[in-house]
Amino acid sequence: MTGRIYNFSAGPAMLPVSVLETARDEMFSFRGTGMSVMEMSHRSNAFAEVLDQAESGLRRLLVVPDSYKILFLQGGASLQFSMVPLNFLGSNESADYIITGAWGKKAAAEAEKCGDVQVIYSSEETGFKTAPISELIFSSHAKYLHFTSNETIEGVEFSRDLDAGGIPVVCDASSNILSKPIDVSKYSLIYAGAQKNIGPSGVTVIIISGEMLDQIPREQHRMLDYRQFAEHDSMPNTPNTWGIYLISLVAEWLTEQGGLTSMGVKNRQKAAYLYKAIDNSDGYYRGHANVDSRSRMNITFRLSSVELDDRFCSEAAMEGLDGLRGHRSLGGIRASIYNAFPFEGVKALVDFMEDFARRNG
Amino acid sequence: MTGRIYNFSAGPAMLPVSVLETARDEMFSFRGTGMSVMEMSHRSNAFAEVLDQAESGLRRLLVVPDSYKILFLQGGASLQFSMVPLNFLGSNESADYIITGAWGKKAAAEAEKCGDVQVIYSSEETGFKTAPISELIFSSHAKYLHFTSNETIEGVEFSRDLDAGGIPVVCDASSNILSKPIDVSKYSLIYAGAQKNIGPSGVTVIIISGEMLDQIPREQHRMLDYRQFAEHDSMPNTPNTWGIYLISLVAEWLTEQGGLTSMGVKNRQKAAYLYKAIDNSDGYYRGHANVDSRSRMNITFRLSSVELDDRFCSEAAMEGLDGLRGHRSLGGIRASIYNAFPFEGVKALVDFMEDFARRNG
Repeated sequence: MTGRIYNFSAGPAMLPVSVLETARDEMFSFRGTGMSVMEMSHRSNAFAEVLDQAESGLRRLLVVPDSYKILFLQGGASLQFSMVPLNFLGSNESADYIITGAWGKKAAAEAEKCGDVQVIYSSEETGFKTAPISELIFSSHAKYLHFTSNETIEGVEFSRDLDAGGIPVVCDASSNILSKPIDVSKYSLIYAGAQKNIGPSGVTVIIISGEMLDQIPREQHRMLDYRQFAEHDSMPNTPNTWGIYLISLVAEWLTEQGGLTSMGVKNRQKAAYLYKAIDNSDGYYRGHANVDSRSRMNITFRLSSVELDDRFCSEAAMEGLDGLRGHRSLGGIRASIYNAFPFEGVKALVDFMEDFARRNG
Repeated sequence: MTGRIYNFSAGPAMLPVSVLETARDEMFSFRGTGMSVMEMSHRSNAFAEVLDQAESGLRRLLVVPDSYKILFLQGGASLQFSMVPLNFLGSNESADYIITGAWGKKAAAEAEKCGDVQVIYSSEETGFKTAPISELIFSSHAKYLHFTSNETIEGVEFSRDLDAGGIPVVCDASSNILSKPIDVSKYSLIYAGAQKNIGPSGVTVIIISGEMLDQIPREQHRMLDYRQFAEHDSMPNTPNTWGIYLISLVAEWLTEQGGLTSMGVKNRQKAAYLYKAIDNSDGYYRGHANVDSRSRMNITFRLSSVELDDRFCSEAAMEGLDGLRGHRSLGGIRASIYNAFPFEGVKALVDFMEDFARRNG
């Protein structure tokens, strides 16, 4: 482990050490096969086992009902911004979108290329600091409701599963999936890029209900049709085998950690420790998101000037606290502390924050 | 290296040992960064270097003109079956397709969802044993010509770059790219799933001319628009960072091997050694492809009965010769011997073939 640092990157992000150890140790021969997972046919028995472990691991952790499929796609959440409307929004149809940050806005922009988009909530004018707290009014004919459960750039998170009164709920959960228990049965489709809480980049996890699958019109392009992936065990073509392997290892690690209830507690503690340091700094550090909409995954704040933000990031990096620079569109500081990010790293950051404030007060 | 086997899998396929060694050794800290490549931000300087090495490595090896972009996408060649027509074939337009095997047929089927497809050559009726030898007649108004330079299932390969008399040439080179020098300037778009000669599965390499990029209509879905990838250095969103890292290592290895001229010689020798064993077996082993269309990458043959094919594969596997079973659609035997497959493995297979024929003559 020599020379490892605390990596606050928003994603790709830190992976559990035990996962990296296994990946390293099996590099030349996965479970006695004499091949790396990267080298084996995706149609082999050995890989079938890997795929099954990834799928069943996620199913167990998230308590996914049997009537839902778990699929492994490629292209990231961004491709889902298009695949969701390509599969579910005809040119004469309408969908509701909730926009609480930059990613939700991008999702809505792609949907507009397919059909009518009703933005039923947007916090853009007030700087993307809030998730909706009060009741929402959904369009009666909406084909689906789309929302982003955690916005990584602004650090804004929904604290609850949404209920849209019978309208199918579609959720981009890229940056907080697996961070706490959720009620999957309330969703019709959950998608998530793997590179925050699930594994490395290059895999997108889809959790989709049987009812939703049945609504896909025929004559889609094969690789843009969820049904093709559902009918062929995620393999209408060659999947990202290495990524799925890593996901199987992460699922195993999460189970060893006590599952999502335990992760939920740990993630709350990590975030609370960091927000406390912000709130107790007498305004030296200023949180971006409203208190009731704060993300447990991406803690966003800034100092009193861009120069101080810069100095903070540079000095932190020299102390082995890397990746703290906020997204280029927002500036400031962003500490991303997903599942695999250890509490000790949060503590190291808070110690640094206190020291930095003293030295630059 | 203990316990390594000879893996004749059609893809994902064997990787060079030195590539796996580096991937293993850098698992916890890539070049002193204290992170795995899987953990680092795709916007970091360290990853920018990886991306640049992958890109410039391929550019040098394939002698790609400056006016062409090299892009790293996801979704495999199968997504390209759709992206090519989505970008270049309007509903009132026509494209020419050459079909020499199962993959070319699938590509044409997706294109038909966008516009008119003219199949100007198909060897399907005669069992996909041939690539066109004599002159082809192209449609005068074709937006592009599409062909598959090597068909992995049937083991049929073009021995030359195609010239379509001014019509842009689009080539699925998934299974023979980097196996020999080609003249990139004759192509407008080359695409290739990485998992045979380039790296692990989960990355698709695109080589596209500037002229072709300029033809893409506006209002495409972002993640299905080559221009988005060209304008954002392959990163309109998070790419498969691990896959690109492996590609950078494979490119380095290929350079050490003497580049594509040297690989071309080696691949010709490996294939010739195996075809000689087939041709000298007095009909015990029967090659699938016509002699003039034989693939240097996928050597397909069969024995006199399905039972003997089965016994051959089972016994070979016990000798550490794995992955020899032909594709389920064709049956028989398939030995895939891409760049990273060593000559010793071909020799081991030929020894086994001779021994098997003696014992089961």
